[in-house]
Amino acid sequence: MSVDTLLYWIGMAAVAVAALTGVLDAGRKQMDLIGALLVAVATALGGGTVRDLLLDRNVFWVVDQTYLMAALGAGLLTFFAIRRRDIPPRWFLFPDAVGLALFTVFGTQAALQWHTPWLVASLMGVITGVIGGVLRDILCNDVPSVFLKGELYASAAWVGALVLILLQEFGIGPLTAAWAAMATVLAIRLLALRFRLTLPALGPRP
Amino acid sequence: MSVDTLLYWIGMAAVAVAALTGVLDAGRKQMDLIGALLVAVATALGGGTVRDLLLDRNVFWVVDQTYLMAALGAGLLTFFAIRRRDIPPRWFLFPDAVGLALFTVFGTQAALQWHTPWLVASLMGVITGVIGGVLRDILCNDVPSVFLKGELYASAAWVGALVLILLQEFGIGPLTAAWAAMATVLAIRLLALRFRLTLPALGPRP
Amino acid sequence: MSVDTLLYWIGMAAVAVAALTGVLDAGRKQMDLIGALLVAVATALGGGTVRDLLLDRNVFWVVDQTYLMAALGAGLLTFFAIRRRDIPPRWFLFPDAVGLALFTVFGTQAALQWHTPWLVASLMGVITGVIGGVLRDILCNDVPSVFLKGELYASAAWVGALVLILLQEFGIGPLTAAWAAMATVLAIRLLALRFRLTLPALGPRP
Repeated sequence: MSVDTLLYWIGMAAVAVAALTGVLDAGRKQMDLIGALLVAVATALGGGTVRDLLLDRNVFWVVDQTYLMAALGAGLLTFFAIRRRDIPPRWFLFPDAVGLALFTVFGTQAALQWHTPWLVASLMGVITGVIGGVLRDILCNDVPSVFLKGELYASAAWVGALVLILLQEFGIGPLTAAWAAMATVLAIRLLALRFRLTLPALGPRP
Repeated sequence: MSVDTLLYWIGMAAVAVAALTGVLDAGRKQMDLIGALLVAVATALGGGTVRDLLLDRNVFWVVDQTYLMAALGAGLLTFFAIRRRDIPPRWFLFPDAVGLALFTVFGTQAALQWHTPWLVASLMGVITGVIGGVLRDILCNDVPSVFLKGELYASAAWVGALVLILLQEFGIGPLTAAWAAMATVLAIRLLALRFRLTLPALGPRP
Repeated sequence: MSVDTLLYWIGMAAVAVAALTGVLDAGRKQMDLIGALLVAVATALGGGTVRDLLLDRNVFWVVDQTYLMAALGAGLLTFFAIRRRDIPPRWFLFPDAVGLALFTVFGTQAALQWHTPWLVASLMGVITGVIGGVLRDILCNDVPSVFLKGELYASAAWVGALVLILLQEFGIGPLTAAWAAMATVLAIRLLALRFRLTLPALGPRP
């Protein structure tokens, strides 16, 4: 399987997963069908859109509307699934971590192929990974959860993006590097959730 | 009258109407003159700007500053009108519905002329129609009203955009199709307001 | 010193100052290290990014990652400085006013060199000056302070941008005009803070 094919399916899977989390979140705000679908589309396509605009590439889902269909399809299915019965919020942590890993690799690799400097490429990975969720939280009028004291969300993405860049710098092939980077993001995020690992934070002194 | 001329004036009218609604909304948040004008500009030009960025076109108001002048002029007039006396909120529903119809047609047609796939073109119409209002609500720190359980706002735009695309697919001229699509958006939105039509929604079970 | 060199260092200083204000603001919301750094980056690079996207230029910090390093460096230093001891909010008004002056000149001049119409160029100066702070406030879930009844924030930027454009229209060299415009922004903003000057505002009648 070529890197481009892998990236294509990674992107598609990340889009579907993010659309699902968008609808789950919209469910807490009394949104109607179209509102929930628009939040799903913004969550699913937002990160990659910002990345493509910043890199002055063609926006990925404008060129290939399969992504848009995947986001709308996943959003619709989720909408009718959660109307039937409640889904506990913690069910959504694992798909969300998978989506973060997928988007981070998708975003970093796309920036590298565009020959941006390495620090910019790693930030593009983080942006692709987290902006969708930031948009989702802004549209639902919450402080974006990525920014709050939490369990290594953006940090996991950043480390994964740097792993992806470093491995390729040392001559590892892009396919192997992509799997290693995804495993890194997923491992850091899941371990942080399990053991409540956090970074130093600001805020009112105890 | 050519399609381009019609689109030009449709766009200009939509911009002025949206600037008006932006200032009306800013009036509820103790904004000063410049703050209200900036919200007016964001409401009026936001949807078309996002569409042009996504399509990688030149941003319409950067190329032709008449749009910017229309937004600032309409915003200024509204500011001094509502400082003089209160305007009941329901007065703003009809111009807002007209603006939605105008922007949807303006956005969808611009995307079609850019040869995007049809589903993308219809979403561009919805984006052009609703993003201005979403920006307005985010800048005023509200949950965007389009997403909430409501009277077919984004849905009216989506149906209108699909009507515009379908009619032209069946060989109807773009001018006729544009009038039909605007009538569709306006009719759905006004009927929904009158008869309180809504879509299925998420949220706390009764 | 050439205009380009001056603009380069003006931009770099503005980026560092804005990153500092971003972290100061994030400190009120219990953000962790990465969250605060991302808010710093958005505050520091947001205005110029929106301007470059609107003008269809290469985004400044994607091409030259020194800007990104300056934002991250200033953000990190501020993070550990305010973790050690509290900083009174009014200390942040002067650097913020300097950043506003720097960004306004940086943004307006970049638009002029891109040959946009004059009204658009002045708005680009305002956008570059205020969007960073708007993003910061949206990410922290506040009504953006620029829009609220306040002490001539966006107005100072707008007048400064117009001074920069007018002086060059009358044949004054760009270096002199840049200094004069920065002095104008700073003087208006500081006098307004000192004497509580405000514009007419909307809102509940007394």
